[in-house]
Parts: sequence; structure tokens; C-alpha cells
Amino acid sequence: MILSPAISIDDIIDAARVIAPAAVRTPLLENDGLNARAGRRVLLKFEGAQRTGSFKFRGAYNRLARLDAAERAAGVVAWSSGNHAQGVAAAAKLLDIPATIVMPADAPAIKLANTRALGAEIVPYDRHTQSREEIATALSQSRGATLVPSFDDPWIIAGQGTTGLEILDQAAEAGADVGQILVCCGGGGLTAGIATAVKARAPATHIYSVEPAGFDDTARSLASGVREGIAPDARSICDALMAPSPGALTFPINHALLSGGLVVSDDQVRDAMRFAFATLKLVVEPGGAVALAAMLAGVAPPSSGASVVVLSGSNVDPAAYAAIIGA
Amino acid sequence: MILSPAISIDDIIDAARVIAPAAVRTPLLENDGLNARAGRRVLLKFEGAQRTGSFKFRGAYNRLARLDAAERAAGVVAWSSGNHAQGVAAAAKLLDIPATIVMPADAPAIKLANTRALGAEIVPYDRHTQSREEIATALSQSRGATLVPSFDDPWIIAGQGTTGLEILDQAAEAGADVGQILVCCGGGGLTAGIATAVKARAPATHIYSVEPAGFDDTARSLASGVREGIAPDARSICDALMAPSPGALTFPINHALLSGGLVVSDDQVRDAMRFAFATLKLVVEPGGAVALAAMLAGVAPPSSGASVVVLSGSNVDPAAYAAIIGA
Repeated sequence: MILSPAISIDDIIDAARVIAPAAVRTPLLENDGLNARAGRRVLLKFEGAQRTGSFKFRGAYNRLARLDAAERAAGVVAWSSGNHAQGVAAAAKLLDIPATIVMPADAPAIKLANTRALGAEIVPYDRHTQSREEIATALSQSRGATLVPSFDDPWIIAGQGTTGLEILDQAAEAGADVGQILVCCGGGGLTAGIATAVKARAPATHIYSVEPAGFDDTARSLASGVREGIAPDARSICDALMAPSPGALTFPINHALLSGGLVVSDDQVRDAMRFAFATLKLVVEPGGAVALAAMLAGVAPPSSGASVVVLSGSNVDPAAYAAIIGA
Repeated sequence: MILSPAISIDDIIDAARVIAPAAVRTPLLENDGLNARAGRRVLLKFEGAQRTGSFKFRGAYNRLARLDAAERAAGVVAWSSGNHAQGVAAAAKLLDIPATIVMPADAPAIKLANTRALGAEIVPYDRHTQSREEIATALSQSRGATLVPSFDDPWIIAGQGTTGLEILDQAAEAGADVGQILVCCGGGGLTAGIATAVKARAPATHIYSVEPAGFDDTARSLASGVREGIAPDARSICDALMAPSPGALTFPINHALLSGGLVVSDDQVRDAMRFAFATLKLVVEPGGAVALAAMLAGVAPPSSGASVVVLSGSNVDPAAYAAIIGA
């Protein structure tokens, strides 16, 4: 299998073909309350409606579908805070591939339970003292299994990029001219995929990554031009966006195509989750709400066309959600 | 203005034309977790994404848009537990019509606040001791304002029926053959509208009303053939579905077109709300969840084609919601 170091729009079109039988074409929604609050036209790409409740299924299915018979039989190994875990587990189940996922012991219980329910073997680790990469790499080598990275892989990036194709198609169906897209950013796979798809078809569109404070490695890397890391003591409620640095494959794409990196606070994320509950009637997890938070908090730059906000995931524990919306 | 005693598919097609500039074409969603749990293909019509968070805007806007200049100047009066209130208030605001809404003093705070925020005057009453009809009728007569019933009105029924047209169009787009539709039922306006639309275009489709236990007046009326009332001490968490009996206009339509009336318990409704949170990632209020409850609890009859579940509204207080999903 040949992996090119970067991806093109053709890789994303091919990914869309591959995932079509299994993935959901999630809705692009518009809400008058949000438009009024933001003072502009906003379109919401709701990936909570995707299989497994986040966009991660797109990349995982696109990656696993490329494995040959021998690779499928040997299984896959991944590490993930929970959404990539579920995406890989669901894709593996559909394709009849054994899956082992290295997950933080303190991942949201819903993400652990859902991953297990999808038939994957879970190997827990301590997020603060152990290296998930090392554990997963050792597992894949000992088993001859294929390692499925959560973002730094061309097939993964191309799969996430199918979100961008849908956004452009659905915005056109809604009669909207897209001026900017705000994308939640952990390791940068979704951002890089969407940027590749959208800049190829609508080059004037501005794409912004959005990260939680403390995990603004992509914002700082975009500013400095080199891959920056996070502080070792960084904490955030956005468990899905805790990648320690931009990816080796994703960062060059994002550096070339993004208009900038935005940052929001955990309190702004909580406000966005409450707004999604009360006005949008959508369940959004903390990491899935950062782009909405940027729009509501006035962090998003002005746009000459409609602003698209990606709600990237919705897997949140009931108790944590109840505490945030009930506050 | 001539109001015909019943409505036809043409009235609904005309309503769809009238509300198109203002209403949301809400998504018809499919979820693999729901299909697996239900053991059949289920499509979800999510009216939480409608303007004001429930289907009620459809009928309200269709009704208010028919008023002439003098009627608009004199304003409108409505009574409602909250969703019709918001629908009327939002339509009135868009059409620049003064609106007064008679609402139960114990309506969910979110419904009272949203109705007030839309610029309507609110007149509270005690649901257990006062007649909302009498209060609203007296108000409309003293002011020369038009009374806007919450269900027993041809324009209202026709407006709600646009939901049925969208279901058939969107199911066809999804490649689904609709075998049955489960519709939340209070006074029966949404049910009658959907039934009129769907039976005209797809006569073999089975339509079922779904009500909470204690407020099963439509189910019992369908069985007996005459309009039955509820017990005076009936209670339910489904505040949106507390109409005391089927409507004079809606019941003959439902009696002629429905395949039966289903009933679910409050506990089954809570389970459905939790499922919507955890798996669908959608916020649904108690009254909006009864059709989903019927599907999940095995109350829905078998279907020879896809089952459509209408999620009719999503206006629920954060504390009440937190208590249900966190339990």
C-alpha cells in the first residue's frame, strides 16, 4: 500500500465513494436563534448524527476499507481518547476486523462503554504518565496488526475531508455562499481534510481551526510556522481535543491552507453547550462545541459569506452534561 | 374568510407554499443504533430543529399569514401550554401582528421565557381551576382580536400537515418506502395534518397517534368512535400533550384516516428521552418523545416498510432534562 505524504481532492472524492454505504450524510442545519445571536448567517454541520456520534467514523472506515485480506485478518490497533476509538471499532465491526484500542483510563465512561459494545478490546493507560503511542506501537508489532493513527494518516485525513465536500454541496442546496468554516481541532485531521476539500473547490473560503485554551498548539504553530507542543500541565474539559501537537502530515496542510487558529476558554465551551441544548436542541460534547463557542463568543472573524460551524461530536457522559446545562 | 370544516391535500400543499419562506425543512434522520434497537428501519422527523423548537410554528404561521390587514392590526389571541404559544408569538413577530397568549402558570419556564422573548403578551392561568378557552375567548372578544386555536382550525391543521409532505419527500430521497408513521398526539392537529397529507399520496401507509397514559383520549375515542375526555385528575410529564379531548375538526379526520391510537407511560417517555440524548444526540421534550417511546418500548405495531417517528418538540427546562438524563 502506497501512502502519499499529502492528500488531494481526488483522495477525498474517493473516500466519499468508499464510505458512502456506511457513513451518514449528516445534516447541515440553520437556526434563526443562532443567526440572530451571531448577527450573521450560520450553518451547522452536525456530526453528532454521524455513526458513533462523531466525524471520526469517516476516516476510520476509509482507512480500514483499504486493508487487504491478510491485513484484515491480523487486525488493527488504535489509540484514542474515545471518538476515534468508537469510529475504528464501528468500522472494524462492519468490516469484520479485530480491533484493539488503547484508551485513557479517565476517558468519558460513555466512550469506553460504546467502544466495548462495538466489540473492540480496550487497553487502558494513564494519560498523564504513559505514552499511548508506545503502547499501541508495541501492541501492533507484537500482533502484526495495522496501526490506525487518529489523524496523521492520509486515508484518515481524506475520510474526514468528506465532511468538507458535504458542506459545500449542502450549502449550495441551501442557497448559501460559504465565506468561512470553523473546525474543531485536535491533531488537525478534520481541519486538514476539510481544508483540502474546500480550498480545492472554493478557494476564497477561509478555514479556521478552533482549539480550547491550553491545547492551542495548532494556533501557535500556525503563528510560528513550526509544530509547537502543549504545556505538560494543560487541562481542559475538551477531552476529544487533547492531542499534544499538530501532526507531521496534518500541519503542513493546515499551515498552507488555513486562515488562522482560534482559541476559546472552557467557560465559552460550556456556554456553547448550553446554547446548543436550549436553542439548537442538539447534544454536543465539549470538544465538539469549540467552533460554536468561537462563533457565540465573538472570537470568529467577520465573514463575507455564510459561516459554517462544524459540531464535530456528541459523546458526553450524562452526569457531566447535566452538570453543565443545569448550571 | 371561509373556513372549510375539513382539509384536503390541496390545503396542505398551499400551506407548504405559504410557510416556505419562514419555516425550516427539518431533517429526516436515520440512526444505526436506533435501527438495531428497534429491529427495523426507522426514520426520525426532527421538529426540534423547527423555528421555536417544535412543529407548532408551521400551523401558526399558516394561520396568521391568512389574516387581512385589519385583522392583523387587531392582533391575535391564543392559549397554549407553551409550544403553540411560541409558534404563534414567532409567526406574529415575523408578520408584525400583536399577540397575546394565555398560558398555564406552571408551564415550563423555558416556554414562558421564549414566548415572552418573542414579544408576546402572556396571560397566566391555573390549569387545574380555570378554563383557558374562556379566558382567551373573552380576551379576543374584548379586543376584536382573532382567536388562534392550537389545533381545531383548518389552517392550523393544514400547516402541521406540511410535516407529512416533507416526510414523504425526504423518505423518497433516502430510498425508503414508508410503512407507518407514529405521531405524538395532543389535540390531534399534527396527526390529522400528517394523515391527510400522507393518506392522499401514499394510501397504504399506516398512521398511529401516540399519547401519554392518562391523556389517551384520542386512543379511546378512536376505539369508541366518539370524542372521549380525560379524567380530571390525570397527570403526565408530557406537558405538551394535555388537551382534554380530541378536536371537533381533528377527530373526524383522525377517525377516518388513522390505523389506531398507541399509549405509552411516563417512564417509557423518560427512557426515550435518555435514548435520544445518548444515541441520537438530540434534545427531545417529554411530549416530543412519545412516538419514539412507542418504538423503543415495543408498543408500535410491525411495519411492512420503514417506520417514521415524529420527534415533535424539544422545549424542556434544563433542570427537568438534567434530572431525567442523569437518573
